[in-house]
Amino acid sequence: MPGVVPELSPESEHRIRGHFATVAFNLFLGAEITLLASGRCELAVQFREELAQQDGYFHGGVIATLADSGAGHAALTLMGAGHRALTVEFKVNFLAPARGERLLMRSRVIKHGGTLTIAQSDAFTFRNGEETHCATALVTYMGFIPRG
Amino acid sequence: MPGVVPELSPESEHRIRGHFATVAFNLFLGAEITLLASGRCELAVQFREELAQQDGYFHGGVIATLADSGAGHAALTLMGAGHRALTVEFKVNFLAPARGERLLMRSRVIKHGGTLTIAQSDAFTFRNGEETHCATALVTYMGFIPRG
Amino acid sequence: MPGVVPELSPESEHRIRGHFATVAFNLFLGAEITLLASGRCELAVQFREELAQQDGYFHGGVIATLADSGAGHAALTLMGAGHRALTVEFKVNFLAPARGERLLMRSRVIKHGGTLTIAQSDAFTFRNGEETHCATALVTYMGFIPRG
Amino acid sequence: MPGVVPELSPESEHRIRGHFATVAFNLFLGAEITLLASGRCELAVQFREELAQQDGYFHGGVIATLADSGAGHAALTLMGAGHRALTVEFKVNFLAPARGERLLMRSRVIKHGGTLTIAQSDAFTFRNGEETHCATALVTYMGFIPRG
Repeated sequence: MPGVVPELSPESEHRIRGHFATVAFNLFLGAEITLLASGRCELAVQFREELAQQDGYFHGGVIATLADSGAGHAALTLMGAGHRALTVEFKVNFLAPARGERLLMRSRVIKHGGTLTIAQSDAFTFRNGEETHCATALVTYMGFIPRG
Repeated sequence: MPGVVPELSPESEHRIRGHFATVAFNLFLGAEITLLASGRCELAVQFREELAQQDGYFHGGVIATLADSGAGHAALTLMGAGHRALTVEFKVNFLAPARGERLLMRSRVIKHGGTLTIAQSDAFTFRNGEETHCATALVTYMGFIPRG
Repeated sequence: MPGVVPELSPESEHRIRGHFATVAFNLFLGAEITLLASGRCELAVQFREELAQQDGYFHGGVIATLADSGAGHAALTLMGAGHRALTVEFKVNFLAPARGERLLMRSRVIKHGGTLTIAQSDAFTFRNGEETHCATALVTYMGFIPRG
Repeated sequence: MPGVVPELSPESEHRIRGHFATVAFNLFLGAEITLLASGRCELAVQFREELAQQDGYFHGGVIATLADSGAGHAALTLMGAGHRALTVEFKVNFLAPARGERLLMRSRVIKHGGTLTIAQSDAFTFRNGEETHCATALVTYMGFIPRG
């Protein structure tokens, strides 16, 4: 879906970036938010030896983590302040070896419902300037307001 | 499935533990093999702050990583030396918050075919001696012999 | 999980069998309930030419339908009268060709939560008295009480 | 992906439509191919009472069947004559009630590999001229050449 990306309010952007910073595992992987918009999130991580599987490519678990986390932060852009989102389930298909200097996860909400939000996350690796679509995932989130 | 666990030959066990040690991301997470048997694998990881999501529980990405890796090493126990196994896809359902000092992933092969192997991985957390079933995953692997 | 099957009350059994009879597509396929218990459901369908794929085996869509429907009725056994259950998503892995005179779907709830219920459905075909495990599925249901 | 749809050769179109006609369950549902192109397939089915779930909407099993079958025929467009394709697994997320006079399944191949082909199928219902995106599915196929 090309075209204009619907902007988030500065308050929402601040809130969601703040949430991302509380997810220790994202920081441990070195992931960062490279785009936030209404119903969308992009996360990126640089390759390091620690993130590799046996062939020196990004491990599937790194891809799964970013697919889940990107979808979750995309879902949060559509929820009000005070809402939380729990991962219900996700499914990831690996399409090509995740070989490259950088992994980019592009997540977008497909359906935002009253209780459940479904998003799709697509993973791309970059190697010598070439982009490869290496995985796609469907993720289900449940939104809720925590009880005080 | 209670009862006797079919033993692996010492050669197979050595080979598969050796493979596990080449998966850098497993080591980065602090995962270790706690059981290997024919068609089965158990992996464990101790909780550390770096592995947490926003509430201080194990991140879903840690669970997904172990679900994938446990299934893969369970699949390798049924393949001959020289075989490799690639993750085709997996799907994980989260059943309960993954809160605890330790995460155990129990993986077992459901179907070992000529090309594809399907396994199920179940995640359990341990907290004050109490065990909670916190996730279940179905994982598809493709076995192959790398070309020289 | 061998052992005693927890019985349903006659009222619950009557209610759930009544619900099943309102699902026209189940009847169209010729499916019937062969067991109902707390958190469990078994459905069976006899082979007919109309249910086949190109090789004369049960079509994957028949298997998917029973996997979904069996899981849903297993979920309903744990919900009070007046509750409804919607399929959120499901995933099915095909393990062997579904060749036989009869297809049996065994569904059991893995986790029954406040909003979501997760079940596993396993498909078996019977051919000349031999049983084959031909598919396994994970199914997520959302329970709710319809507004008057 | 708007734009020009890559055409199939008349031979391929004839071959794949011929294959579709051998899948008895598709015909039983009343499904028909409304578009075939390189890497793409669209299937449609008219609503009938027999295809309904308890609320009179299309049953999830009908959607799953078309998601699987559409993906399979999209995959076949990229395989040579003599190839067959087996469903390995699929996963479907339901996005909205499938209420309408007609169900359209749009399938396209995401990745066509040497052994495995991954496709996405999206379901739309039409009601009083209004289109609703009611489900999305990821489907894995394995291509092979049957042994004589």
